[in-house]
Amino acid sequence: MSEKKVEPRRLKGFRDYGPGAMAARWQIMDIVREVAQAAAFQPIATPALEYLDTLLGQGEETEKEIYQFVDHGDRKVALRFDLTVPFSRFVAENQGTLVFPFKKLQIGEAWRGENPQKGRFREFCQCDLDIIGVDSVMADVDVLQCLAQVLHKIDGAFKLGTFTIRIGHRPTLNALMGHFLPNVDGAGRNKLLIAIDKLAKIGQSKVRDLMLLVPGAEASGVDAFLGALTAKVNDGGQDLTSIKSALAGHPESMAGIARLEETVALLKGASAASQKEFVLDLTIARGLGYYTGIVYETVLTELPNFGSISSGGRYNDLVSRFIDRKLEGVGGTIGLDRILAALEERGAVSHDPAVVTPMTHVVYVAIAAPAQRAYALGIVRDLRAAGISVDVALSDGKLGHQFRHASRLGYGYVVTVGESEEKSGTFALKNMATSVEQKDLPRSTVVAKIQST
Amino acid sequence: MSEKKVEPRRLKGFRDYGPGAMAARWQIMDIVREVAQAAAFQPIATPALEYLDTLLGQGEETEKEIYQFVDHGDRKVALRFDLTVPFSRFVAENQGTLVFPFKKLQIGEAWRGENPQKGRFREFCQCDLDIIGVDSVMADVDVLQCLAQVLHKIDGAFKLGTFTIRIGHRPTLNALMGHFLPNVDGAGRNKLLIAIDKLAKIGQSKVRDLMLLVPGAEASGVDAFLGALTAKVNDGGQDLTSIKSALAGHPESMAGIARLEETVALLKGASAASQKEFVLDLTIARGLGYYTGIVYETVLTELPNFGSISSGGRYNDLVSRFIDRKLEGVGGTIGLDRILAALEERGAVSHDPAVVTPMTHVVYVAIAAPAQRAYALGIVRDLRAAGISVDVALSDGKLGHQFRHASRLGYGYVVTVGESEEKSGTFALKNMATSVEQKDLPRSTVVAKIQST
Repeated sequence: MSEKKVEPRRLKGFRDYGPGAMAARWQIMDIVREVAQAAAFQPIATPALEYLDTLLGQGEETEKEIYQFVDHGDRKVALRFDLTVPFSRFVAENQGTLVFPFKKLQIGEAWRGENPQKGRFREFCQCDLDIIGVDSVMADVDVLQCLAQVLHKIDGAFKLGTFTIRIGHRPTLNALMGHFLPNVDGAGRNKLLIAIDKLAKIGQSKVRDLMLLVPGAEASGVDAFLGALTAKVNDGGQDLTSIKSALAGHPESMAGIARLEETVALLKGASAASQKEFVLDLTIARGLGYYTGIVYETVLTELPNFGSISSGGRYNDLVSRFIDRKLEGVGGTIGLDRILAALEERGAVSHDPAVVTPMTHVVYVAIAAPAQRAYALGIVRDLRAAGISVDVALSDGKLGHQFRHASRLGYGYVVTVGESEEKSGTFALKNMATSVEQKDLPRSTVVAKIQST
Repeated sequence: MSEKKVEPRRLKGFRDYGPGAMAARWQIMDIVREVAQAAAFQPIATPALEYLDTLLGQGEETEKEIYQFVDHGDRKVALRFDLTVPFSRFVAENQGTLVFPFKKLQIGEAWRGENPQKGRFREFCQCDLDIIGVDSVMADVDVLQCLAQVLHKIDGAFKLGTFTIRIGHRPTLNALMGHFLPNVDGAGRNKLLIAIDKLAKIGQSKVRDLMLLVPGAEASGVDAFLGALTAKVNDGGQDLTSIKSALAGHPESMAGIARLEETVALLKGASAASQKEFVLDLTIARGLGYYTGIVYETVLTELPNFGSISSGGRYNDLVSRFIDRKLEGVGGTIGLDRILAALEERGAVSHDPAVVTPMTHVVYVAIAAPAQRAYALGIVRDLRAAGISVDVALSDGKLGHQFRHASRLGYGYVVTVGESEEKSGTFALKNMATSVEQKDLPRSTVVAKIQST
């Protein structure tokens, strides 16, 4: 052991997940799977690595963050930065055989080389629900309603707390930019969108300053635009008065607003809770380039500065990047690792790698001497076959040492196997909580006693 | 849609998984989780990307296949090629807080730029069970027994067929090389191991030719070595006669063989099936550099040329690459995507992305006109809350078109919502298998009727 050591370290922005955190992650994934199945979403998976050109074209900010390299075959490749763009590639490749509208669930990691912040990591797991091949209010509602149901169930399991899903609309933002700031070109509009996206983080005054830097953006237009965007009604939703009067002459924009209003009304109509959970908010812009309709973000009531834990929107032109067919999509992400970070923040989940899930239901089989190994393995198998969790002594230490190990891990029972037990075909059983030990029990009694508790 | 298209394509050796394949993958993962929990293995996860130096040092062949690059922060990084090396880094980082022996389950992707072959991909999901912090027969047995149990349950669910787990022993191979081929140096021994690893694939005569190319390997020694290695007893297990006589003068080697024999005997003792499933076979060498004790591979009886679907071994020196503490490990992988490929080969799972899981249990809610959307969403929520899978009409097409979509997807029931239903607070319910439609049913009757089938 004297050779030069490799330092055991993780890359910045990357995390390990210990047993406590992993149990929570899997429980959340199971909730997503359950909700998705109840709504007839079909699971798919795509690779972590794609051709770089598949992933490009969704904005400068995003492209800077992509992990890209040249592979063994001199191909330009990249780790996916989300699941939506690879999904659109999947749909384009399989458009001849899939039945549309196609509803899909995808759970997987994505990677972005952004600066790590609270609750944001360079590797993160996303759970995406998408519907592709239809452009309708009902598709938008179906996705958003399922995502809200997932969040409800996570709240039920972990006390995540209440949340607000704020829904914006890219076409309306575009129309408003055209109306209030007609001298801003396409590149400038993207800068305006990126500025709007920062409203919740840096505030209106700083966003105004950013906007004034955009070529062609006059102060009067910026102020009118920001005023229309940030007008709120009493329940926190959007006051659409000045927006509607600004766009009154554009029938297509008015139809878009009407659709947005219907979408939010249908979502609010689900229950008394939904009434508060869904809010129309045109200041939601989103950074990614592919959105063409509704865009949304989700904020936890008790962690308002934690950022969005679930977001998404409509993307009608992603598949037509690949093929000469329009397959309109809408989708949203449950940001699993952001939710986990929120649960850690709230103390509901521990990130300490040494924290294990409760083990009071686990039986430990202690072995007095190596000669009893085969006999001990018999009851290990029987108990496991009966659905009972069982660990077994792995080293030849003294029984006292084995009991201490079982106690340290919080195991509920210890079954002891020694020479006399093997001879008589019995076992000793100790309840670690009560310290009561019973001897000479036949195998079936041991199984029954543990099962009955 | 006239702009230049991006070709929708996957990288060579990478696969998409459609709904049919994904349902099977998740079912297998659930089996692994269930077996791991019953044996008190704790779930963990580590990142896909590691510092390159964390992953190096496990053999030239492996290093050639690692996906490596320089990241945004000028760090040399790499995609993990297995889960074992990152796990040893995790253990080294957390050695102060973990309770040893530590039993862990890890499910995740790994990447190797090897040439794709039948059932082998450049991205593949592995399910690893490991025990670290103890060097014992019982730890070896516990891991191997759990892996066999996973394979039994996969067979029960998908008819995978019977399998043989062939168990070799690196220290015995090393001792035999020292005895029969004393003039071969360390680098030459690695070449001999790689040659032995190819026995099943290319046969004894070609392996002999490869061995004769190794500097210091005389023909007589190679023949004696190969003869000892390949001697079999009637049940297909290893004939240890000449091996034991060769190593009679080396007490440590004889103790190693005795331990190997006990391990295999304990595994065979579990059941009549185990008697055939576990076989001692010293021709199992494994390519990775980190093995220090038992090594094993698993072959399907009915797909003998398909390669190993589950493999692993003991690695006692991996953690001490990082820290000045010896934490001995043993572990094995369920090669999820190789098993899936085997199930595809056997016709038990389809890889066609358009193949979905059976949908006869799914209800489709058809909507006569947009005015009924809110009313329809009410029964959608009620049915989903009752645990019933429900899809809903997403576009405003005619009812006939909606019924055809439901029929095409194989949905079991269609609930129709029209103006008269909304007025009377009822629904129409059609059983798609019998074509019987009942009208004017109250909401509770609809739920009850579907639940009762």
